[in-house]
Amino acid sequence: MKCKICGESANIKLDYCGLKLCKPHFIEYIQKRVKRTIKRYQMVRKEDTIAVALSGGKDSQALLHILKQIYVDSNKLIGIHIDLGINDYSQESAKFVRILCDELEVPVHVINIKEEYNFTIDNAKKSKKIRRPICGICGLVKRYVLNVFARKYKADVLATGHVMDDEVSVLLSNLVNGNFEQLIRGGPFLPSDDVSMVARIKPLYEISELETTLYSHFNNIPFIEITCPYDVKATVSSYKQVTNKLEEMQPGSRYLLLRNYIKIYKKALKDYNTEIQQELCYCKVCGGPTIRDICAFCSLRKKMEGNE
Amino acid sequence: MKCKICGESANIKLDYCGLKLCKPHFIEYIQKRVKRTIKRYQMVRKEDTIAVALSGGKDSQALLHILKQIYVDSNKLIGIHIDLGINDYSQESAKFVRILCDELEVPVHVINIKEEYNFTIDNAKKSKKIRRPICGICGLVKRYVLNVFARKYKADVLATGHVMDDEVSVLLSNLVNGNFEQLIRGGPFLPSDDVSMVARIKPLYEISELETTLYSHFNNIPFIEITCPYDVKATVSSYKQVTNKLEEMQPGSRYLLLRNYIKIYKKALKDYNTEIQQELCYCKVCGGPTIRDICAFCSLRKKMEGNE
Repeated sequence: MKCKICGESANIKLDYCGLKLCKPHFIEYIQKRVKRTIKRYQMVRKEDTIAVALSGGKDSQALLHILKQIYVDSNKLIGIHIDLGINDYSQESAKFVRILCDELEVPVHVINIKEEYNFTIDNAKKSKKIRRPICGICGLVKRYVLNVFARKYKADVLATGHVMDDEVSVLLSNLVNGNFEQLIRGGPFLPSDDVSMVARIKPLYEISELETTLYSHFNNIPFIEITCPYDVKATVSSYKQVTNKLEEMQPGSRYLLLRNYIKIYKKALKDYNTEIQQELCYCKVCGGPTIRDICAFCSLRKKMEGNE
Repeated sequence: MKCKICGESANIKLDYCGLKLCKPHFIEYIQKRVKRTIKRYQMVRKEDTIAVALSGGKDSQALLHILKQIYVDSNKLIGIHIDLGINDYSQESAKFVRILCDELEVPVHVINIKEEYNFTIDNAKKSKKIRRPICGICGLVKRYVLNVFARKYKADVLATGHVMDDEVSVLLSNLVNGNFEQLIRGGPFLPSDDVSMVARIKPLYEISELETTLYSHFNNIPFIEITCPYDVKATVSSYKQVTNKLEEMQPGSRYLLLRNYIKIYKKALKDYNTEIQQELCYCKVCGGPTIRDICAFCSLRKKMEGNE
């Protein structure tokens, strides 16, 4: 098996396009693809500062590495990591984030939610006042805190490590369940509201988990390999199993579905009935974006009072 | 396990709704569900004559049986079976169709395509002039011939035995591949064009293959159990594997996707860009509906000339 670019021994064959590549040309190929995604969805303007959400896992670590190669000469990258207070797991995660940021010379801010908001995910897990599954709570906290601190550090966009596998499985779940609102708002680029929400981008939208894993290994990128102690597989994972199975049988189908969603379905649904779309307003407590009087994060904080 | 309706011993538990039913109440339940589908999509008007396309397989045989129970007092049902000229298989199929139609006292017309059009599917399979896969050719022949003879026998609607499993797998395939035209025209009811196309309905749109199988067994409905000798599993079957797998893990998901497609996506796509929609016109040879000058069936006939 020979590399299509240089003719040397290839390390990987990509099923969805038949391409065979050696390590260096695979790395180059992934960087080019991410660059194309950023351009295609007009994610970043020339002068933008990009805050990269870093969990310590392989996807976000690979994302930072790729962005550093794309924006090699600029100072526009900053890392943001949230210390969620999940016992040893959070400490381990932060370690990997710091190692990579040091290596790549990217400034990183570690936000400790215990210090900032006086509760932790461990507290929330134990609290009897919280009825939602802890993964939902954790997702809410991350979205909120990342937005607040991306703005605080003057970032223009917030980049997250969402990969194709997750995006397409969530898309299928939304299509099956008719989640109109999410179908209209989903995708790789969510613009800023110019008030309190920083633009969110997903540069790995068209890159698979397998590709970020290989990219990380080929570049010796450090990342946390243990999973979160609270990560019980949620509903969405059956959709992921199914979309992965389809990809196995019909290579390239995940990419096709995502592209057709962005090119056709999302636009058609948006035009179809704008009345159904929920109006964005601002939280009376923190001023952040919400569809209620008080945002979900402020409601959570209220519940967690006295639960420290 | 007890029947929810009568408390007697149940024969089946339906995973998607948790309902446990005995044989007679399962039969009643399926008939009610089909009645609801017919009503929901306004498939049949009071005075309509329904031509039922009968292949001899379990789905269309079950369909005829169900429709006969729903329209018990009327003479509005006729059966149409096409003898495709697939050697022994076609002869076997016709036998089962005749047995059931006799039993149910439904008049049946058997259309022999060799007699009518001077070629058979066996001929087409062997012909070097035909490059399309034979299942595609066979589908084309069936659609065309059913329409011609449904009209000839003065039917108002043509009912086919398409079940949920097939419909949802085709839907997913169309969504993945962005088959705009099919997404707009798909669904359980395709109205007549008032010129040369009879309305087509799929009363089993919301019934699964498992349900028609059980329904057939519980009613001792005769059907052909061998598969067509040309039935090599086509592309669509990977979508079927995937949607069946999803149903296993998330019971009811197939139904949900179909409903949301009909309620939202189909309408949104239709509104979105009507310009893309192909204009229906009429074949210069036979006058049948087509999007070209000469319809696909007449082109096929031309190719088959001298191939008898």
